[in-house]
Amino acid sequence: MRRVRALILDLDGTLVDTVYAHVFAWQRALAEAAMPIDGWRIHRRMGMSGGLFTRAVARELGRPLAPEEAEAIQARHGELFGELLSERRPLPGAVELLAELREAGVAHGIATSGRRPEIDASLAALGVSADTVVVERGDVLRAKPEPDLFIACSERLDVLPDECYVIGDAVWDLLAARRARMLSVGLLSGGYGEDELTRAGAFRVYRDAEELRHSLDELGLLP
Amino acid sequence: MRRVRALILDLDGTLVDTVYAHVFAWQRALAEAAMPIDGWRIHRRMGMSGGLFTRAVARELGRPLAPEEAEAIQARHGELFGELLSERRPLPGAVELLAELREAGVAHGIATSGRRPEIDASLAALGVSADTVVVERGDVLRAKPEPDLFIACSERLDVLPDECYVIGDAVWDLLAARRARMLSVGLLSGGYGEDELTRAGAFRVYRDAEELRHSLDELGLLP
Repeated sequence: MRRVRALILDLDGTLVDTVYAHVFAWQRALAEAAMPIDGWRIHRRMGMSGGLFTRAVARELGRPLAPEEAEAIQARHGELFGELLSERRPLPGAVELLAELREAGVAHGIATSGRRPEIDASLAALGVSADTVVVERGDVLRAKPEPDLFIACSERLDVLPDECYVIGDAVWDLLAARRARMLSVGLLSGGYGEDELTRAGAFRVYRDAEELRHSLDELGLLP
Repeated sequence: MRRVRALILDLDGTLVDTVYAHVFAWQRALAEAAMPIDGWRIHRRMGMSGGLFTRAVARELGRPLAPEEAEAIQARHGELFGELLSERRPLPGAVELLAELREAGVAHGIATSGRRPEIDASLAALGVSADTVVVERGDVLRAKPEPDLFIACSERLDVLPDECYVIGDAVWDLLAARRARMLSVGLLSGGYGEDELTRAGAFRVYRDAEELRHSLDELGLLP
């Protein structure tokens, strides 16, 4: 086993507290389009690509969604999300974690199924510097649970996949990590339970970025 | 072991799809009062009594909340909840489950940490008849995870505690059920994971009221 020396961090639910606003915005957008879907079913699909999410919605509805229908719902979701959450809030320890990694010289990047410019406010709230590696939906062909985002991030960090930990709050992060041949760590801050994350492949589960930050030595990441 | 012959049903997250709106309304109300708290920490406390919830918030904040502060936040939560969710949506199978229990003559009641008149819209959306036993926060001294609501419901149904199943989506339902010496069944429709509900004491876990409805024979509830 190679030495693990880089962290690839998910954004929503891992570094910023946006999951519940996303769930609720999707729920409202879908209800407005006469496609009411249970909150928990949306929650369990947060963090996967928009395309897959739309397909999952179609499966719940029992009928395919036309591309223009899917696009309209996605646009309305964006509007509602902006109204609901005018300010992005970093999760506990997230800002400090990024600063600490930077200071300690631990390679790290952010890999998100989110898209620019929607994610810009989150990056700004976290104080992410311009030279930080950020891989977003527009940079790759396929989002999570495909491993593309994580692979692209490891390439930009110039480390091998098996030298990376993925840090995420959703089972899609953990599945994509496994497919990218990366170790993974789950955080409870997106609302998944500990067992669910462990069963999906997380090597460890921490409460949030704050607990992760205090556990970097356990992960063999500090010199 | 006595024959189980009655169902005591939780309301939010079990029969109506209100959990995510509640989480988000609490999150907004607390943020407005300069007490930002992570969404997942609120989610994990849904269904417990308002008093306990306030104490949990105080623990997160690291300082006690004055009663008038707690009351103001609770009132603002109610306002925001009403704005966010102008219509209450029954969860899949909930209306049919209640009708089926009624038709089959299976004793059943609703026991909720919610309070009248806030819960009235949910009961109306479910088509709950006037003669259905409903025990709400105002009827007992202490809400979940205290067993009072479930005990009061069994008394009103005129069955013994060990003749009841509790059906709920939150670990507080399951803890209160255990303390009331009742069996319990967990539903995923409130956003807890299956393992979390099983570990908290659920004898079985179903997706939602719809799956429960098709499994009443498994529970030994139908003649």
